[in-house]
Amino acid sequence: MSLVRVHNFSISLDGFGTGEGQTLEAPFGHAGSRLVEWAFETRTFRGMGLHGESAGSSGVDEAFASAWKPGIGAEVMGRNKFGPHRGPWEDHEWKGWWGGNPVFHTPVVVLTHHPRPVLEMEGGTTFHFVDAEPAAALAQARELAGGLDVRIGGGVTTVRAFLEADLIDHLHIVLVPIVLGRGERLWDSLEGLEQRFAIEATPSPSGVVHLILTRRAR
Amino acid sequence: MSLVRVHNFSISLDGFGTGEGQTLEAPFGHAGSRLVEWAFETRTFRGMGLHGESAGSSGVDEAFASAWKPGIGAEVMGRNKFGPHRGPWEDHEWKGWWGGNPVFHTPVVVLTHHPRPVLEMEGGTTFHFVDAEPAAALAQARELAGGLDVRIGGGVTTVRAFLEADLIDHLHIVLVPIVLGRGERLWDSLEGLEQRFAIEATPSPSGVVHLILTRRAR
Repeated sequence: MSLVRVHNFSISLDGFGTGEGQTLEAPFGHAGSRLVEWAFETRTFRGMGLHGESAGSSGVDEAFASAWKPGIGAEVMGRNKFGPHRGPWEDHEWKGWWGGNPVFHTPVVVLTHHPRPVLEMEGGTTFHFVDAEPAAALAQARELAGGLDVRIGGGVTTVRAFLEADLIDHLHIVLVPIVLGRGERLWDSLEGLEQRFAIEATPSPSGVVHLILTRRAR
Repeated sequence: MSLVRVHNFSISLDGFGTGEGQTLEAPFGHAGSRLVEWAFETRTFRGMGLHGESAGSSGVDEAFASAWKPGIGAEVMGRNKFGPHRGPWEDHEWKGWWGGNPVFHTPVVVLTHHPRPVLEMEGGTTFHFVDAEPAAALAQARELAGGLDVRIGGGVTTVRAFLEADLIDHLHIVLVPIVLGRGERLWDSLEGLEQRFAIEATPSPSGVVHLILTRRAR
């Protein structure tokens, strides 16, 4: 059975998955890179060629980070993960934060109220711009995934919308020991979530805590 | 040197240290006992005679729970930890949630805008009702503590006020894997707290995660 998974989704102690004030230069707003620095050190993220040339770590952070890709046939992401622009598309040259050969190498459904033609990138990534509610977007992603799992890639609003719709089977949260104070909160509107998920916590020597939420049998 | 310590302070995944709607029957409002159940299982809490007669656990939860008392000479608590009443005291028979022989066995400073005579209880607990800002309340508690440490006992508003005033040296938070959705948030107004504290996380087989925040050298 095809599962719906979230991986490497970092939040602060106060529950913010991103800061305030996203711009081209600051995808996470005032949070800067603080939410994702733990990942930059891992072999998986180093292997994407984004964060330096050294081999990267192979401990518990890497064990969790590396699970993001195997078995995934498509990703769904919110528009704010794709880029900092709002409203109708004005810059059609913008093709995401990831350069000409994005790290996904699968179809990616980008949720937006503003349609745009499919973007075919090098390396197998195709961006499909879709105006749909979570269930319909997931159906489309499942079709594109060819029987494999679907990853919900973020941002916060997108993950929360899929949790509200009870569409997520596996949720990997990384609790980063910082207090951001402002931004987008993950847990809002999810009162009682623990009734639907088993929750396991694993601390890392890097200082983060990995939380794995697994959907209970339905 | 006398330290200011917080122990066994439970919060939900979404950062609430208590629920909504405190009453005489529900000290934690809609949270019920869910934030403190981990503690009820420990030998320390069983030893207070509040939570059953069996011996209680002796694992990591107990290791942290038992640290609440040694070296403490006084506690400071907010009025809502002392009782559910608001405004001027109308029921002078109310002497706290803990019966005639409270678990503290030290002086306790209760923060309130409504003065009231000192309450001397069995077993060495005395409740001192004080209308003061954190720094002044702490000075009074330190005097009562006779050179020992002072515990900030809660609730959320009180712990947060002492953190804002940068008066806390040791903060033991227990992250309980539930999403409460509403109540009083601990982390609000504390952006950048990690710059003042070293933070260590230890998970427990009970499902909670113990967070120890230790004030960095000033």
